[in-house]
Amino acid sequence: MSNIFLGIDLGATNIKIGCFDSELKLLGKTSVAAYADMEPKVAVEQIGAAADKLRADNNLTGTTLTAVGIGSTGQFNLAEGFMISNPNLKLFQNVPLRKMLAERFARPVVLDNDGNAACYGEYVLGAGKGVDNMVFFTLGTGIGGGIILEGELVHGAKDNAAELGHIIIYPDGRRCGCGQRGCVEAYASASSTARRAAEAVKSGAQSSLKEVLDDKGRISCKDVFDHAKTGDTLAREITDGTAKALALVCVNMLHTTEPQRIIFAGGMIAAGPVLLNRIKHFFEEQIWTLKAETVEICFATLGEDAGLIGAAALARQAGN
Amino acid sequence: MSNIFLGIDLGATNIKIGCFDSELKLLGKTSVAAYADMEPKVAVEQIGAAADKLRADNNLTGTTLTAVGIGSTGQFNLAEGFMISNPNLKLFQNVPLRKMLAERFARPVVLDNDGNAACYGEYVLGAGKGVDNMVFFTLGTGIGGGIILEGELVHGAKDNAAELGHIIIYPDGRRCGCGQRGCVEAYASASSTARRAAEAVKSGAQSSLKEVLDDKGRISCKDVFDHAKTGDTLAREITDGTAKALALVCVNMLHTTEPQRIIFAGGMIAAGPVLLNRIKHFFEEQIWTLKAETVEICFATLGEDAGLIGAAALARQAGN
Repeated sequence: MSNIFLGIDLGATNIKIGCFDSELKLLGKTSVAAYADMEPKVAVEQIGAAADKLRADNNLTGTTLTAVGIGSTGQFNLAEGFMISNPNLKLFQNVPLRKMLAERFARPVVLDNDGNAACYGEYVLGAGKGVDNMVFFTLGTGIGGGIILEGELVHGAKDNAAELGHIIIYPDGRRCGCGQRGCVEAYASASSTARRAAEAVKSGAQSSLKEVLDDKGRISCKDVFDHAKTGDTLAREITDGTAKALALVCVNMLHTTEPQRIIFAGGMIAAGPVLLNRIKHFFEEQIWTLKAETVEICFATLGEDAGLIGAAALARQAGN
Repeated sequence: MSNIFLGIDLGATNIKIGCFDSELKLLGKTSVAAYADMEPKVAVEQIGAAADKLRADNNLTGTTLTAVGIGSTGQFNLAEGFMISNPNLKLFQNVPLRKMLAERFARPVVLDNDGNAACYGEYVLGAGKGVDNMVFFTLGTGIGGGIILEGELVHGAKDNAAELGHIIIYPDGRRCGCGQRGCVEAYASASSTARRAAEAVKSGAQSSLKEVLDDKGRISCKDVFDHAKTGDTLAREITDGTAKALALVCVNMLHTTEPQRIIFAGGMIAAGPVLLNRIKHFFEEQIWTLKAETVEICFATLGEDAGLIGAAALARQAGN
């Protein structure tokens, strides 16, 4: 009877559930909707029911569930297995989520935050394969992160390590949602990139993005990269601002935990070389000359399932 | 027969050697001179002879030497035990220092860089006692660092982790000796603090430091802090520049490895509260409002022997 693992990715609007074999091959996945006033008890019931159905639908009822992993948005006390708060799920306050899931599945449950789960997924099966020491950034509405050192996630004193979007790169610079000024997130997230472009167009900069703003009433991050590809000067400057901010955090992470590989993930990496090549360009421009650095800067490969895979990988690690 | 450990601190101009018991109590110490064209073989012979004499002089010939630890300036390949290069000792190029010392003492030898050794000393016996997760900065001519995670030093992919003086805090800012621009070292080291003050005075700023410059031909970092204490406006501004730069790296380290404690060491901490209180002030000003942080920011307690103690502590750890 083969062993299987469940990975759960608890996001703002839906909860993804995947069944994996011991090689972390995805055997089937499903999802249930999440909503702002969802009760924790209801969420656990729906996850349990969906997982049971998933196993039945994929002829996995004869397998042995070994462990369950869950990556989620929110703040945690990982030692105790509690979700302390969640900006998307307002009833998840001091919820013993690990215990609730462990009781539902009668199996060990590993809990971690979404950035760490996705980081671990890329480490085990994606762009981080083969290295023991990596740094991971997710570029979305915000910027999340993860750090792997000698094969282990870095959690910090109170489970808030690797909040890499809030590294300050421009002191007294743009205001970030976190209350700080000059965070890399305030420059280089998808929403910040789009916002900087819109501000420039509104203040009169010449750009093909002006038509986009006039037509759609807004500029997206994808618009910025698309127009950079077709040669628009402003779009290239905005892209460079994003790339330089990301390069600066690469320099700073190199001098901190000295990873072998720095991996960027999230919707923004669809931009491709127009972004990646500029990050590498600014990294070379900003890095010291004391010694030649060989850190690899690259994009993630697992796409949207990184968190699901990572959660299952954490379950597998705990089950062993 | 009691066990003893040797700690060695290989610096730019001298080599300190200490004998420690298993509680890391210093039983005796000595030193030999280091000089730019010192041959590695000669250095090892002199260290060996000085250590033998140290044991004899302190009635320790009946004890058992268990292991030897050495912290040193320079670049290393720690896995192989090589010193790759050393700006102060030009003949130390690709030297199998660990093997040479292990042969001389016929005991296991642990090698690490000086910043890590001092960090480990503070962790085991100094300001880091009682925490598992700390960040350490030495404020001298340059700024060095160390990171402890779950009780272990972070070495990075190629033994160059925790080069914390080269975290960029002001992109495109002051040129650092490393080739980068805007490193914290270029603002907040003792020499950079003194240099910023001298530049300001020379460009006409009103300050009681002008007399110092006229009298001595130079301004030291200590002068800056002394004049800040007596209320000189420029000296206070320069001190604030140093404190803010250090506070910014505290914020960034909190969002990276999330230490429980951040410890500053080195000659500069003799300044006392005039510096520490301002670092704490700027930390509170710059840190996010998402949650209350409880990280402790404090000064080291072991003084100049931190590296020696740390080297012995690394030896003890290896000997166990």
